[in-house]
Amino acid sequence: MADSPNCDLKSLSPLQLFERVTEQGEKVRALKAGKAPKDEIDAAVRMLLSLKLSYKTTTGQDYQAGLPPKDLVLINNGTTKEEDEDLVDPWNVQTSNAKGVDYDKLIVRFGSSKIDTDLINRIERATGQKPHHFLRRGIFFSHRDMDQVLDAYENKKPFYLYTGRGPSSQAMHVGHLIPFLFTKWLQEVFDVPLVIQLTDDEKYLWKDMTIEKAYEYARENAKDIIACGFDVNKTFIFSDLDYLGTSAGFYKNIVKVQKHVTFNQVKGIFGFTDSDCIGKISFPAIQAAPSFSSSFPQIFNGKENIQCLIPCAIDQDPYFRMTRDVAPRIGQPKPALLHSVFFPALQGAQTKMSASDPNSSIFLTDTPKQIKTKINKHAFSGGRDTIEEHRKYGGNCDVDVSFMYLTFFLEDDDRLEQLKQAYTSGELLTGELKKVLIETMQPLVAAHQERRKQVTDEIVKQFMTPRKLAFEF
Amino acid sequence: MADSPNCDLKSLSPLQLFERVTEQGEKVRALKAGKAPKDEIDAAVRMLLSLKLSYKTTTGQDYQAGLPPKDLVLINNGTTKEEDEDLVDPWNVQTSNAKGVDYDKLIVRFGSSKIDTDLINRIERATGQKPHHFLRRGIFFSHRDMDQVLDAYENKKPFYLYTGRGPSSQAMHVGHLIPFLFTKWLQEVFDVPLVIQLTDDEKYLWKDMTIEKAYEYARENAKDIIACGFDVNKTFIFSDLDYLGTSAGFYKNIVKVQKHVTFNQVKGIFGFTDSDCIGKISFPAIQAAPSFSSSFPQIFNGKENIQCLIPCAIDQDPYFRMTRDVAPRIGQPKPALLHSVFFPALQGAQTKMSASDPNSSIFLTDTPKQIKTKINKHAFSGGRDTIEEHRKYGGNCDVDVSFMYLTFFLEDDDRLEQLKQAYTSGELLTGELKKVLIETMQPLVAAHQERRKQVTDEIVKQFMTPRKLAFEF
Repeated sequence: MADSPNCDLKSLSPLQLFERVTEQGEKVRALKAGKAPKDEIDAAVRMLLSLKLSYKTTTGQDYQAGLPPKDLVLINNGTTKEEDEDLVDPWNVQTSNAKGVDYDKLIVRFGSSKIDTDLINRIERATGQKPHHFLRRGIFFSHRDMDQVLDAYENKKPFYLYTGRGPSSQAMHVGHLIPFLFTKWLQEVFDVPLVIQLTDDEKYLWKDMTIEKAYEYARENAKDIIACGFDVNKTFIFSDLDYLGTSAGFYKNIVKVQKHVTFNQVKGIFGFTDSDCIGKISFPAIQAAPSFSSSFPQIFNGKENIQCLIPCAIDQDPYFRMTRDVAPRIGQPKPALLHSVFFPALQGAQTKMSASDPNSSIFLTDTPKQIKTKINKHAFSGGRDTIEEHRKYGGNCDVDVSFMYLTFFLEDDDRLEQLKQAYTSGELLTGELKKVLIETMQPLVAAHQERRKQVTDEIVKQFMTPRKLAFEF
Repeated sequence: MADSPNCDLKSLSPLQLFERVTEQGEKVRALKAGKAPKDEIDAAVRMLLSLKLSYKTTTGQDYQAGLPPKDLVLINNGTTKEEDEDLVDPWNVQTSNAKGVDYDKLIVRFGSSKIDTDLINRIERATGQKPHHFLRRGIFFSHRDMDQVLDAYENKKPFYLYTGRGPSSQAMHVGHLIPFLFTKWLQEVFDVPLVIQLTDDEKYLWKDMTIEKAYEYARENAKDIIACGFDVNKTFIFSDLDYLGTSAGFYKNIVKVQKHVTFNQVKGIFGFTDSDCIGKISFPAIQAAPSFSSSFPQIFNGKENIQCLIPCAIDQDPYFRMTRDVAPRIGQPKPALLHSVFFPALQGAQTKMSASDPNSSIFLTDTPKQIKTKINKHAFSGGRDTIEEHRKYGGNCDVDVSFMYLTFFLEDDDRLEQLKQAYTSGELLTGELKKVLIETMQPLVAAHQERRKQVTDEIVKQFMTPRKLAFEF
């Protein structure tokens, strides 16, 4: 090992660094115990200090013997990426694989747990309800501490749901509904309160957008969310710009989180730089704070320790890894999580969809004709080049976007399995599969539009007014 | 000049760097115009790029030809300090001079303006009142845009006052009263609304203190502030922890400031590092926001552009240099400022007093006996070593802390002048001067204690409730 180890050490993970510091500490102790020559001991001590400095630079925390950088390993791995790895953070999702991100690898990298058959069965037993097809089909595929939530639930201890949306534009696409559709199901089967955060402040900070515009998008997006069918007596939707100025508890939790997270840490987790505005740098605390029930004294009667469960797409996990790291240090329970896969763009599963490209997905405002044209024109096909080849070799459901969309939106398991078999065997052509998707999406979007029309400003106001919900705490 | 100029350039001010970039740009243009050899031009361009990089590193902004770093010069000079310069920032005041900080130099370094006789006379004409002795004696010695405030006032345009306190402990000393005593006078002679910020969130972030404790100190300190005699119908006192959760406008202004200030900038202004928590890094926006009237819609009827005037000690200026830099970029008027000198510690004017050392000053809770003992025992004397020498050569009022305290608290100009003459001539002994100070401070502190006793929790609540004041906007 060279005398100045800093250059070599940059590539090490926090855990590897931790091990190097520990090793070196043992070496120093051994040298001292063995009464080694002074200059040899001095050199080893210098190396130890240098390693500790590298550890601190990488993790943002002092090395503590016996305390490996548990959540920090994950935190700092969130945005680092090896050559062949997928890139996943709150602003980027990138993979070179047409099947999409490798979610099994992501579970290992993020340090979460796979939602396996045992857990799904347990949810079925606890709720007495058939698990949602998002669970059965691995669309919600990863979790943190869901078993603890179920333990508590079985012991009649309350919990609550928290999810959210960044209102970057008026237009939402069908992929944006995934967390809300699943959250609605969770709320129904567990019968628990739900809070939905609209991060209009985040969009103001990140985008070239006025505060007024961001707030307007928040209210417009609230209509689409409400149109999913949430119960106003059990659900509180809030805009940060609004709620921060009306809640006694929210800002206190924000400032508590802000005291316990350093710039080094958010740099590691979110990739912020010195040129970023201080609003971005402190924002993660605002997404963290709704994980603590004391942010909603009007709902939880001021109770501090109600367990929170967050259903969200896996790209939001960095915020909540940070939150879980902070929680015990401010005397709060860690929020549990349920992670979904990304919703693929029509053009293929390599990237997350973008609300700014109208052809990248089916939007909630699309007409039946637009839906038909988009699917026929843009949906990436897993079929063969010619009908003859397709009949002979069959299509590939793993990369076919129409089939992927059907796994999200076609609830009938038998029908989906039939389609898969028929497409894979070559019996079903791409055009025919697309027709099934069109016939699935058209009524679904039309029904959403119909429900959204019923959502008046008055109803939005009801959902967004801080108040007690239909639960006693 | 060496090829890599970064090392030499570290000691340059932003303005000096700006001039070096400009010079080098002209040199490159001249070389190109004169068709100099390619390698000579290349070397000059490399140097130019290197200089621009240094400029950006120092100021946090790109070099723009013709646009010298105006407010930024000031911003970045706030915490940089040459060898013989005084150190002045919100957390440190240090000077090697027994007379205290060199305020004339500070005015030049901070880029503020001296409060001269013309300005004092103008205040007298505008208000029809004899100027406060803090003005007459140079205790408020520096300003920014006070002439604009007076222009507006003379044209019947409204303005408001904003000052504050960081509630780091229950105990306040007489020096803490200086901005409040002066603000009270300003409010009376101009008859304008006043907002007083108690930065309990700041103290929570900076100190080893719970949120509850910081909030308790805020309310205790409010009692001492109210005891200065503020009019509840014209004054709103707020704790950040409270008010952020009750105001529609405050958080919006905070997030606007946070969008327009980078980490580079707060690093330059406040000396933050990567190991600082994100709460500290974003806090300056919270001290900035009350400079904008839209933070108080209940007082200003939602009006956005009411001019703000901030009386404060000069160490708070970095916050407001930052605020003034941001204001035009978010469509708000720059706040005007009136700066006071520091209140000296009993032990001498080299440092600002510390609330954590009970012997460093006279506290508002001291008994007459404690006041007497402290002054006799600790007040640094400008007298000679022996009575004989003192009679012969006289004492030095410039370094005598008893005399300094009298300039703050003895309102009678003639009496003060007599004391100065008598002490300087050697006629008055140190013990006698101390006796005058004791007799001045004892009734002053006793009267404060008497008034403070009258300040009930109910009165504190009235002051701290967001409401309309006795002004129409």
